[in-house]
Amino acid sequence: MNATDITRRNKTPEQLTEELTTLLRQISELDTNSMEQVQQRLDALTKPQGSLGDLERIAIQLGGIQHSAHPQITGKAVLIMAGDHGVVAEGVSAFPQEVTPQMFYNIRNGGAAINVLSRQAGAEVICTDVGLAVPLVPAEWMKRRVAGGTRNIAREAAMTRAEAVRALLVGADVAREAITGGVNLLATGDLGIGNTTPSAAIIAVFTDLPVREIAGRGTGLNDQGLTHKRQIIEQALRLHHPDPQDPLDVLSKVGGLEIAALAGVILQAAASHTAVVIDGVISTAGAMIAAHLKPRCASYMIASHCSEEPGHIKALQSLGLHPPLNLSMRLGEGTGAAMTMYLVEASLRILTEMATFAEAAVSGKKIKEE
Amino acid sequence: MNATDITRRNKTPEQLTEELTTLLRQISELDTNSMEQVQQRLDALTKPQGSLGDLERIAIQLGGIQHSAHPQITGKAVLIMAGDHGVVAEGVSAFPQEVTPQMFYNIRNGGAAINVLSRQAGAEVICTDVGLAVPLVPAEWMKRRVAGGTRNIAREAAMTRAEAVRALLVGADVAREAITGGVNLLATGDLGIGNTTPSAAIIAVFTDLPVREIAGRGTGLNDQGLTHKRQIIEQALRLHHPDPQDPLDVLSKVGGLEIAALAGVILQAAASHTAVVIDGVISTAGAMIAAHLKPRCASYMIASHCSEEPGHIKALQSLGLHPPLNLSMRLGEGTGAAMTMYLVEASLRILTEMATFAEAAVSGKKIKEE
Repeated sequence: MNATDITRRNKTPEQLTEELTTLLRQISELDTNSMEQVQQRLDALTKPQGSLGDLERIAIQLGGIQHSAHPQITGKAVLIMAGDHGVVAEGVSAFPQEVTPQMFYNIRNGGAAINVLSRQAGAEVICTDVGLAVPLVPAEWMKRRVAGGTRNIAREAAMTRAEAVRALLVGADVAREAITGGVNLLATGDLGIGNTTPSAAIIAVFTDLPVREIAGRGTGLNDQGLTHKRQIIEQALRLHHPDPQDPLDVLSKVGGLEIAALAGVILQAAASHTAVVIDGVISTAGAMIAAHLKPRCASYMIASHCSEEPGHIKALQSLGLHPPLNLSMRLGEGTGAAMTMYLVEASLRILTEMATFAEAAVSGKKIKEE
Repeated sequence: MNATDITRRNKTPEQLTEELTTLLRQISELDTNSMEQVQQRLDALTKPQGSLGDLERIAIQLGGIQHSAHPQITGKAVLIMAGDHGVVAEGVSAFPQEVTPQMFYNIRNGGAAINVLSRQAGAEVICTDVGLAVPLVPAEWMKRRVAGGTRNIAREAAMTRAEAVRALLVGADVAREAITGGVNLLATGDLGIGNTTPSAAIIAVFTDLPVREIAGRGTGLNDQGLTHKRQIIEQALRLHHPDPQDPLDVLSKVGGLEIAALAGVILQAAASHTAVVIDGVISTAGAMIAAHLKPRCASYMIASHCSEEPGHIKALQSLGLHPPLNLSMRLGEGTGAAMTMYLVEASLRILTEMATFAEAAVSGKKIKEE
């Protein structure tokens, strides 16, 4: 890629499709041999077999992802993708759009919740403008911006198909650079006033559930605001008829630039044998796009928390993911994913630091499995 | 207390009752003034109000517990109480009773899951023999042992009322010593083959739910074993008719020595303005004993995980507690509680490290609360 065309503005649709196809082709199955070796080690440790539940499941998954019986975490990063949404013109958010750049600066200055939780996790925060609506200072921070926000999905398509692929590939670029730099545990995060609206639209399309079961209050809508938001989403879905068999159709018609980039982060993680922790409802909408482009990429995902947005758990279930945290959060930014990194590390500490039955001279089970 | 009578063997029932009554009297309400100050600070931080859910709730709770608008964690310990259970003679566990001392040594040697997770949490592990059935070497490790295991609850009372109070006060002693030594965040843990059986009995008594909705597979019973375990618990409840209005009656008839000690840990934590993280189903049975002795001690409890034992969530609900972790675990030892310490610390980092709306020049909500 030409450094002067970091957002691939000069690429033809054919070139973009080819680049995406190449990315998808790099995603392989988990290594079952390593997974079996991890399982055997876990079963030899001084605890009833399987009694550490999801910790054991995650350790096994990491073995498969890293193609190693001794998976390790060597570097962690939270990749936040930021974008604005034309649909805020319809009054779907409790906060004004000016908060997107304000929070972008807040994150860059280390003052947001995700900065606090990432410091605690020992993870780097990388916040990328994929589609903010206003200029940023310094201009350098806009270098990956694909467009100045999406268009209003209640009236027109959020973006072109080419913009959707370009935003997705920007996310993949950011992930690849982090991985090349030594990171092997990624977390997704999002920033963008109004972005629970396109996320709900995406989840409704893929789950085929009614919008009222998916869309929630976002940052804090009242009852009237929530009713209106649901109507807007229904209007967008009626207008566009996104095709669930065509993830790029869904993404470009009712998605978001940061959601596209999050899908790209996830696909690149999978292509690079790297585990990726999925944050809240926006990240999970991105994960759905990724999983519909390449189903096997779901095996590289680790769920984090179950947010207050009603569509979140439905989306996780449709991906076959189980969230270990349930904190009634609704913030985004990657906050749930950052905390989940601790659990991922716990799973590997269990694998490497616990004594075996033989080492500790502890008796095994007296009742055989059925 | 005389150092030569660390388990209060020479105390009269009246002296024991008086000591317990004094402990209960020391437990005061949370400080609402500090809680309001913490709430105000949280509401000024750059996030939608309440959007960090349980993290905010925990920070507020810690303010109330510590009587401070700036609550801090200065030292952490996991207090594991260990005991054996006469009811294992009925074949209610998948593991033989010899595993209790074996795991006691494993924990003392640092090889158990709780050692691994406590190291990660930066918490000390203190494992106390309150009632193992066999001698330990060195004998020093038995100094707090109240009895050599409980009696078989399917045939007779688990212990005398005096033994129950003595075991409870041993737990309180261990907690008080940890707190005096600088610990101000406690986690509970348990060790004892067979101890999901008395725990299920306790929970069934207090929730008045049928045993089949409470008792689970413990360390790994098969279907036949589970059916038998439920029958044994039902038999014990029919035999003893424990009085839910009299927590010491429940504890002594169908409880356990380590469960009594866990109740004591929790009561002492509350008496010392110290938050205590409640682990799995055995710890929660102890928490129910504590809360029925002194209801307000529940406000000092922080729930950790929701275990696989079906009675656990029912017990937590009856205490008004919400578990932030859901990892399908069923190990005990304090493993869920140890990991929850990370979330408790996250809540305080949020409180102290995040930027306010004013500091970060971020706009507030445009839609007023209803």
